[in-house]
Amino acid sequence: MAGPGGKKEKVDKADKAGKKKKDLKKETGLGLSVKKDENFGEWFCKHEMIEYYDISGCYILRPWSMAIWEIMQIFFDAEIKKMKVKSCYCPLFVSPGVLEKEKDHIEGFAPEVAWVTKSGKHDLEVPIAIRPTSETVMYPYYSKWIRGHRDLPLKLNQWCNVVRWEFSNPTPFIRSREFLWQEGHTAFATKEEADEEVLQILELYRRIYEEYLAVPVVKGMKSENEKFAGGLYTTSVEAFIPNTGRGVQGATSHCLGQNFAKMFEINYENEKGETAMVWQNSWAYSTRTIGVMIMTHGDDKGLVLPPKVASVQVVVIPVPYKDANTQGIFDACVATVAALEKAGIRAEADLRDNYSPGWKYSNWEMKGVPLRIEIGPRDLENKQVRTVRRDNGVKEDIPSESLVEHVEKLLGEIQQNMFQVAKQKREACVEEVKTWDEFTEALNKKKLILAPWCDEEEVERDVKARTKGETGAAKTLCSPFEQPELPQGTLCFASGKPATKWTYWGRSY
Amino acid sequence: MAGPGGKKEKVDKADKAGKKKKDLKKETGLGLSVKKDENFGEWFCKHEMIEYYDISGCYILRPWSMAIWEIMQIFFDAEIKKMKVKSCYCPLFVSPGVLEKEKDHIEGFAPEVAWVTKSGKHDLEVPIAIRPTSETVMYPYYSKWIRGHRDLPLKLNQWCNVVRWEFSNPTPFIRSREFLWQEGHTAFATKEEADEEVLQILELYRRIYEEYLAVPVVKGMKSENEKFAGGLYTTSVEAFIPNTGRGVQGATSHCLGQNFAKMFEINYENEKGETAMVWQNSWAYSTRTIGVMIMTHGDDKGLVLPPKVASVQVVVIPVPYKDANTQGIFDACVATVAALEKAGIRAEADLRDNYSPGWKYSNWEMKGVPLRIEIGPRDLENKQVRTVRRDNGVKEDIPSESLVEHVEKLLGEIQQNMFQVAKQKREACVEEVKTWDEFTEALNKKKLILAPWCDEEEVERDVKARTKGETGAAKTLCSPFEQPELPQGTLCFASGKPATKWTYWGRSY
Repeated sequence: MAGPGGKKEKVDKADKAGKKKKDLKKETGLGLSVKKDENFGEWFCKHEMIEYYDISGCYILRPWSMAIWEIMQIFFDAEIKKMKVKSCYCPLFVSPGVLEKEKDHIEGFAPEVAWVTKSGKHDLEVPIAIRPTSETVMYPYYSKWIRGHRDLPLKLNQWCNVVRWEFSNPTPFIRSREFLWQEGHTAFATKEEADEEVLQILELYRRIYEEYLAVPVVKGMKSENEKFAGGLYTTSVEAFIPNTGRGVQGATSHCLGQNFAKMFEINYENEKGETAMVWQNSWAYSTRTIGVMIMTHGDDKGLVLPPKVASVQVVVIPVPYKDANTQGIFDACVATVAALEKAGIRAEADLRDNYSPGWKYSNWEMKGVPLRIEIGPRDLENKQVRTVRRDNGVKEDIPSESLVEHVEKLLGEIQQNMFQVAKQKREACVEEVKTWDEFTEALNKKKLILAPWCDEEEVERDVKARTKGETGAAKTLCSPFEQPELPQGTLCFASGKPATKWTYWGRSY
Repeated sequence: MAGPGGKKEKVDKADKAGKKKKDLKKETGLGLSVKKDENFGEWFCKHEMIEYYDISGCYILRPWSMAIWEIMQIFFDAEIKKMKVKSCYCPLFVSPGVLEKEKDHIEGFAPEVAWVTKSGKHDLEVPIAIRPTSETVMYPYYSKWIRGHRDLPLKLNQWCNVVRWEFSNPTPFIRSREFLWQEGHTAFATKEEADEEVLQILELYRRIYEEYLAVPVVKGMKSENEKFAGGLYTTSVEAFIPNTGRGVQGATSHCLGQNFAKMFEINYENEKGETAMVWQNSWAYSTRTIGVMIMTHGDDKGLVLPPKVASVQVVVIPVPYKDANTQGIFDACVATVAALEKAGIRAEADLRDNYSPGWKYSNWEMKGVPLRIEIGPRDLENKQVRTVRRDNGVKEDIPSESLVEHVEKLLGEIQQNMFQVAKQKREACVEEVKTWDEFTEALNKKKLILAPWCDEEEVERDVKARTKGETGAAKTLCSPFEQPELPQGTLCFASGKPATKWTYWGRSY
């Protein structure tokens, strides 16, 4: 199958990676040596979120990150089921004929499509594509399932893996060759219903980012250049990472219009007995959400996890002294965890006897646990516990009898504070520009640029061309739904033509 | 990519399939023409569980079946989390070097492995395999994650898709080229811990079948020929389908011993500071469970779904008459659904005005909804509703004021009855044999054969060879943990050597 040369190379890579990490571990015991902005991938690895895999661009999602994914999944799945969206599962494979049916669509994805050509030792009759997304997988069957107006709306969603064999440098969560996502695919009788759902879903994506991940996002419309290949229009929630000065597309909710319906003949008989064509949407968010959260909140001590998605919200650490009642302290830790868990708080005690309290503090700080509780002899005496917040380091002694109320309050405050801090940081990066010079200057200062634009495709292409560099070209992120006032006669910063809207620009992931 | 000929062929297939089904629909309006035992695949399709896909061996799981999968998933995932198993997600792809590391393992899977050799228009440097199962994906990293005894036990599970490009005739759910499953992979310091977990997991699989799917299963040990490739021993739950006289492996819980640990150098430092090797298990159940449930309970009217897994447990159908208070009847239906949903019962009203009550009855019977409630003028008058059970057709008038209690009781009885009936049917098929002649006779009568066996691999191979035919050869299903008494001097039915155990034999899926 693989030439021995090929095999060998892979194995070597894996070994090197392995050694490299082991050495680093030795060096610090915690990998704190790795600064967030220096080596992002390495940084991810240290905190047990992912593991590098011996196939480039693929990563193992470890329990510390999967728990976050599952919490978001429970929220989102329940919300869309309230909207009468039903679960399905469609095949991983697409036959070429179908994949290539919608020209713009395939043009957008073709270069990244992975192809299966063999099973065992035999060549397949026809190469088979692995889904980069499932429009072409599902829509031939929509045309079969949808006959009359009573079959509408049809609303399906699946949780699955997709593969996009990208070559631009892979980053854990943010740009990987396989990732997990949900993809919703819906069909309606009218454009109005489709338009309405696009925004309902986009609001759920905003809530995932702002309420769960404590990441501020902007809702807006993608440009023609940036919209979904083959769709009518694309809305998105856009985040921004101050440290790197890059925008990142958080999730997208597309109105596909009737383009796919034409290609796949998704027609139905309406109330009047006439043949009509459906209006379609598709919408998705992926494990990229986790990467955006990590980049937004992480610091040089490591991760900072929002309480709502942290699999361990509170870690309880015994702080014994030689002469102290160690057993009593350990018992108090266990009792504290029990009390918190009883109240539905995700808590864990770190009773390992081979690590010092100090080592444990840094270890759990690195892993981003929102709240640490320390219990020492004096705490035991005074019937109190010491709380330490991960987000701002604030320490507090709280009476044991009101433990649960205090902790619940603190976790709520941490969640709120993380969002507010992130929002302020992002807003401090926003810069309004009117001219090309202001634009390039702001770009070099890694700003999130808000500029008046003529909304012409060639102009965006031109801006990309003029800003190309090893840090990547600038492009539109979105035109925010909340538009600042645009005075009569305002000109496009790039073309000098009359501006039609304010648009966010920047480099992006 | 694909030759035009290839493309064309695929498209034609899809069209034919499409037309064929449309015609059938017309013919009966319900597809009741299709008898369960005649055309099993077609039969599956009629009931909106799956859709045939234009790639052979791949199927779309529609909401009616995905809802069942999700209910089982919620149960099982919660149970294993109580056992401290954590979720992870490992890549879909395996590099050949790793895949081929464990020789027996790869021998078992190689012929069915699908290979990715191209991305876009470019050939990959090295072909990459799609996981048929993830032992070789995960274990290289187990050797990295496990360092000391405090890292044990390591218990991970993932919910994912796997691909096995089989050529033996595909059947929806039972034998498909891609399927969904969970795969648990655990590592322990001692064999005792591993052995114990194997049985804990097997018990959860029994509960899925017997408590949720109302399908009786036998717990037992697989033979050397039938055990997991590369493992130490395999336990399984085995079901039997009376209509076809075939056994079906329900789910497997493997002890891998230290074989993979050797190959992938999964060592750790034990309490004494010595280097030791871990003991491993892997265990999985798949969407095949749904197929077994459908085959066990379905009849010529269609599906029969156990209440515990039915996404609609109760369907409420208005039975208006010309002169009757139609609005009042419809309101009563809506109120009934509301009352049931309030009590946590999954209920739905079928208020469509373009179908007769009779048509709706058959339609929901075909889809297998456990309980039907009819509301007509007299029911309205008498403040009652009419219930009709799907499992045995029993009708009952129940007073509206005790609706919820009655329905809850009925659903419980249906669940119980379905299991009891299935169990009796299966037991009626069990035949104890002592000689080869009894064996072949029982085999021809499609029996589930329990026979004394010498437990020698060659003998099983010999039995397979001697029973080969177009209906498939006979093989061991499992040696049940509950062994009937084996009198001294009992001989193997096939070899005449001393028998060491009773074993179930039969043809299987």
